[in-house]
Amino acid sequence: MATLKVDFLTLFPKMLDGFLSESMLGRAQKNGILELAVHNIRDWAKDKHKITDDRPFGGGPGMLMKPEPVFSAIEELQSPECVRIYMCPDGERLTPQIAAELSKAKHLIILSGHYEGIDERIRECVIDREISIGDYVLTNGTLPAAVLVDTVARYVPGVLGEENSLTYDSFNDNLLSFPQYTRPAEFRGMKVPEVLTAGNHGEIEKWRRQKQLERTAKKRPDILKQ
Amino acid sequence: MATLKVDFLTLFPKMLDGFLSESMLGRAQKNGILELAVHNIRDWAKDKHKITDDRPFGGGPGMLMKPEPVFSAIEELQSPECVRIYMCPDGERLTPQIAAELSKAKHLIILSGHYEGIDERIRECVIDREISIGDYVLTNGTLPAAVLVDTVARYVPGVLGEENSLTYDSFNDNLLSFPQYTRPAEFRGMKVPEVLTAGNHGEIEKWRRQKQLERTAKKRPDILKQ
Repeated sequence: MATLKVDFLTLFPKMLDGFLSESMLGRAQKNGILELAVHNIRDWAKDKHKITDDRPFGGGPGMLMKPEPVFSAIEELQSPECVRIYMCPDGERLTPQIAAELSKAKHLIILSGHYEGIDERIRECVIDREISIGDYVLTNGTLPAAVLVDTVARYVPGVLGEENSLTYDSFNDNLLSFPQYTRPAEFRGMKVPEVLTAGNHGEIEKWRRQKQLERTAKKRPDILKQ
Repeated sequence: MATLKVDFLTLFPKMLDGFLSESMLGRAQKNGILELAVHNIRDWAKDKHKITDDRPFGGGPGMLMKPEPVFSAIEELQSPECVRIYMCPDGERLTPQIAAELSKAKHLIILSGHYEGIDERIRECVIDREISIGDYVLTNGTLPAAVLVDTVARYVPGVLGEENSLTYDSFNDNLLSFPQYTRPAEFRGMKVPEVLTAGNHGEIEKWRRQKQLERTAKKRPDILKQ
């Protein structure tokens, strides 16, 4: 059994095709660590036209997701241990802490809505947690679902090739990452900082920490203060 | 000529396949409003193994993007009017204001890096703007590039089917959106609020505004104060 099972519920299942097969997540599925399944909400629509959305009561632009198909889908897919998540701009903002926490779940169901929204009764009854990837609005919640799973997966043991890669992440210790350099040591007259090629590991650590502090103070003083 | 041209530079071009063809962005390309092109950075690697990354100077886990292929790619694709963007967690945080601003550009080049980072000389020389979609770390920058273009595209005239859909967005007026309901008016005993079905548009607007204020005060007092 996979360490983490994720069911995606979306009206645009094809949006996730490339995301699921490429890179680290493709590998983690082949290794049996992750089990990712994409479901089309339309498959739970019972009428002959497979209608999943309708105009909002009270007027306004756009279409909303209707309650019936989503209730049916979640009630069929849910398990006693699952966390049912709705991606929306007014949810709690995604952080590394939330990602680490969700990586300990056995089963996630992630609902992606139309950008105009979904019927409020869905949010009240069959959703445990509402998460936002940032303070902006997208055409629908499918990309945010992919973003959530990508960052959560990094905390599932075995997904990252090298376990300690997490320790250099931005936001670890409330600091941004340090500048990185690779070969060639000189490119168009620009040289890599000498400390990085001199081989003194104590000095390298000191330089990197100093750069992290400088960069964070300059770009993100708000996280430094936390 | 398209209103907005976007060149994606990534090591995982397939991750964008589904995203580009589906939904609103697929339509906007067919209508000639957007011109979206995905490029594999590997195509600019000159050695026979098409190497695009290497170990970091000074040690540490993971691989960094090398300068040469990225410099070559950007220098080939860039135009006098383009904005060259690098997606990274230590960039400026994406907001609706930044999205609206970028939607006025004619040409964007968006570089997606490995999550461990890219050679700093790339950031110094061939990048105009560094943008973060949120305070968390992903396996690579390709999903963030898709998120950026999705939200930017919504501000390009003609991309949204109904022009005024933007006015009900979360974060407009520094408020979250209001609860939405669609048919059926009663579902499993749960009724749509009466005000929304009574047909008094003044009352509906008042109710919605009130709910926006309540929801924002409860969930995001930080944006209400701005």
